[in-house]
Amino acid sequence: MFNFFDILDLLGTLAFAISGALAGRERRLDLFGMTILAFATAIGGGTIRDMMIGWTPVMWLTNLSYFYVTLLGVAMAIVFYKKFNFLRYSLFLFDTIGIAVFTLIGIEKGMTVGLHPIICVTLGTITACFGGVIRDILANKIPLIFKQEIYATACILGGLVYYLLNYFELSKDILYVGTAGIIILIRVLAVKYKWSLPFANV
Amino acid sequence: MFNFFDILDLLGTLAFAISGALAGRERRLDLFGMTILAFATAIGGGTIRDMMIGWTPVMWLTNLSYFYVTLLGVAMAIVFYKKFNFLRYSLFLFDTIGIAVFTLIGIEKGMTVGLHPIICVTLGTITACFGGVIRDILANKIPLIFKQEIYATACILGGLVYYLLNYFELSKDILYVGTAGIIILIRVLAVKYKWSLPFANV
Amino acid sequence: MFNFFDILDLLGTLAFAISGALAGRERRLDLFGMTILAFATAIGGGTIRDMMIGWTPVMWLTNLSYFYVTLLGVAMAIVFYKKFNFLRYSLFLFDTIGIAVFTLIGIEKGMTVGLHPIICVTLGTITACFGGVIRDILANKIPLIFKQEIYATACILGGLVYYLLNYFELSKDILYVGTAGIIILIRVLAVKYKWSLPFANV
Repeated sequence: MFNFFDILDLLGTLAFAISGALAGRERRLDLFGMTILAFATAIGGGTIRDMMIGWTPVMWLTNLSYFYVTLLGVAMAIVFYKKFNFLRYSLFLFDTIGIAVFTLIGIEKGMTVGLHPIICVTLGTITACFGGVIRDILANKIPLIFKQEIYATACILGGLVYYLLNYFELSKDILYVGTAGIIILIRVLAVKYKWSLPFANV
Repeated sequence: MFNFFDILDLLGTLAFAISGALAGRERRLDLFGMTILAFATAIGGGTIRDMMIGWTPVMWLTNLSYFYVTLLGVAMAIVFYKKFNFLRYSLFLFDTIGIAVFTLIGIEKGMTVGLHPIICVTLGTITACFGGVIRDILANKIPLIFKQEIYATACILGGLVYYLLNYFELSKDILYVGTAGIIILIRVLAVKYKWSLPFANV
Repeated sequence: MFNFFDILDLLGTLAFAISGALAGRERRLDLFGMTILAFATAIGGGTIRDMMIGWTPVMWLTNLSYFYVTLLGVAMAIVFYKKFNFLRYSLFLFDTIGIAVFTLIGIEKGMTVGLHPIICVTLGTITACFGGVIRDILANKIPLIFKQEIYATACILGGLVYYLLNYFELSKDILYVGTAGIIILIRVLAVKYKWSLPFANV
């Protein structure tokens, strides 16, 4: 029953869960704390989005895949903890796929509810970024994306590309690949060339 | 289509957005971080209120004025950053108008949904105060209003005046002006004479 | 109209409110800050649960008992502040009853909405634990339960017992007493024997 898009969604969820669990481990939280941080990171953005648009029960309450994949992420974070440096590149890849897919999902949910394009792009960005924000709040840190290299910006630009492609009535496949491709490309280039937004000086 | 009340609402939103963006600038966040803090401050209280009463999609998802005014606030915070000391009085004025109008909006939304007066006053206070609470949480500080001069108290007292005036079945205009007037008066006096609640000793 | 279950619910709310108000007092917040922390602790978990499942207006907006009991908790925290050490055991007792009852309420609400057992147990745990999480976030600390002795784990195990007892179609009374009993027992034993989850080393 899973299509390619769903698989990417779950890969993104997995990457986010691992990043959350690792953040918990670094803050010396116990197994429960790690699990909560994993859930917050993996499903936090989608939960806020769904509560704001009134799509309830929110997505992970009715689709158990999110639940199991997040637990899998916790298990992987524990088992592969020492190999973390080795895994860092894969994690970055998953994470970047994650924000691309999460942005798409957020945009499309907004359109389903009939919201304005600007708001849909905002919802996509919230879906992609707010899991990490909640993770950092729970870990008592200033959210990383508030002073990090281009991250949310990639989601916003991807959203604009989505509407551009949509305007020309291209097929769903091109729409998805184009949008996700732009987000992934910007994110990779931003990290490689250390792009940053103005005013970031910490 | 904007009446006087809507204009005050947007002025309040603008003041809150500026205060959020400035808080982000002070914490050395990047442009995105500033924008998120501006949104959190300007629309956070209303978003929590709408999610709690089930008024979804929440207000700023369907009324784009909030979105544009908040972005305007970010732009103003950047352009006038150095004139901040000069602007402080105007900001205080806008902010105070903001909490007065936001309290009224919260109360009336609660009444529309048919909630008890005490709960409506609570919703008004949440609308007025929780944007600032979210701003401070995101900036990793103890929320200012938890240890500041009278602030939420002004909203609560304003709410009681609202029901008092409502009891005598006065016109909407008198109701609004009286409630907002009391909130603004208490807030101005509290700041002028450094009123504070018991137990505040930081 | 109150049955035994409702009374336990209100006792739990009271205990949580006192714990929130005391946390505020310790952080030197003013009366309003104490009250907000009390509300966050007492009704925060249920509010998040209700927003996620779409049970709006959330429970305390329509059932004023929560409101009054929380204010009572604030008053008790102020009056008995100096006797806190004396009261610590009672507080622990109330708090433990609270998480047991809150877990049950969360599970049953999830079942009412027709969610999967695993999700219902999660909702029960969120109801019981997230008030404290919000309290700690507002007080700018890493949530206690992320590195504390067994706490959420007791709720999760209680939830499993709930479904075990439910499977054998026992009466509601046995179901409630059994589930709450297990949660209380695990929590008491965990504190007495300083049980903790792996990876907790702060």
